[in-house]
Amino acid sequence: METLEAIQTRRSVRKFIDKKIPDDLIEKILRAGMNAPSAGNQQPWHFIVIDDKKILEEVPKVSLYAPMAKEASVAIVVCGDVKLEKYPGFWVQDCSAATENMLLAAHSLGIGAVWSGIYPLEDRVSGYRSLLGIPDNVIPLSIIIMGYPQEIPKPADRFKSERIRHNKW
Amino acid sequence: METLEAIQTRRSVRKFIDKKIPDDLIEKILRAGMNAPSAGNQQPWHFIVIDDKKILEEVPKVSLYAPMAKEASVAIVVCGDVKLEKYPGFWVQDCSAATENMLLAAHSLGIGAVWSGIYPLEDRVSGYRSLLGIPDNVIPLSIIIMGYPQEIPKPADRFKSERIRHNKW
Repeated sequence: METLEAIQTRRSVRKFIDKKIPDDLIEKILRAGMNAPSAGNQQPWHFIVIDDKKILEEVPKVSLYAPMAKEASVAIVVCGDVKLEKYPGFWVQDCSAATENMLLAAHSLGIGAVWSGIYPLEDRVSGYRSLLGIPDNVIPLSIIIMGYPQEIPKPADRFKSERIRHNKW
Repeated sequence: METLEAIQTRRSVRKFIDKKIPDDLIEKILRAGMNAPSAGNQQPWHFIVIDDKKILEEVPKVSLYAPMAKEASVAIVVCGDVKLEKYPGFWVQDCSAATENMLLAAHSLGIGAVWSGIYPLEDRVSGYRSLLGIPDNVIPLSIIIMGYPQEIPKPADRFKSERIRHNKW
């Protein structure tokens, strides 16, 4: 899929069919995440790939708005490691860029996905720490829940010219 | 350009030739930014497009690592508006996803770009506030400096299998 088309047609997908995503496509999606830009090119990220149904069924207990995890083929938790940072405080931006790359990669491969937020909500951060055994220096930022889509949402046009300014506010 | 190819071949470009980026391509890049996902689909962003050479020449005084702004065709400051947030604290992630979309869109259009960080560095935030007249509820996150590339950097393979875990840390 062409890049601008992927960006313009990507939507959150929350309903999945019962079909496994092949491992080679998961790897393509992880590669896309790891090729994001990062502050000082420090790549301060880790990825936890969840395909164990028992753990996927636990996800909605931590993320109340993520009941779709139960029906997902896989979920990937994107984490930032503050010990890997050269410029403190930029890990959120680095891991967000990685998350967005993964959403676009998934969409371009015909896979539906939704970005469910974790950080900065303390209860979710601690919930995923317990569920997955994440150490203190690593902070879960987002969980990308994925599967083959039950239906493809129509593209949305979010362009707002009033949000653009020229040279000065 | 195919989406996965754009993601895998995008690199920071810091040297530009003296050639203007047409306005219709700038609009395509802005559209890509505005089509990013955001928490609660709140789209809490603003974009300041700088093509006034006098202002581009001021950029390196605020961002010491951005001397390339002087040679750029255009720079776009991506800002978050905390008054537009439904879920407080997520604007950084939303605006980072928008920034990444714009970098990928630029690359797919043959335009070179580099993401230069602003937030959370207080001196840079206040520097851009003064330079551009940004109000208090709006926080500049990043500045994307763009132009036609002097040379195309080779793709980098950043894949690290040791950053991937399965089901548990």
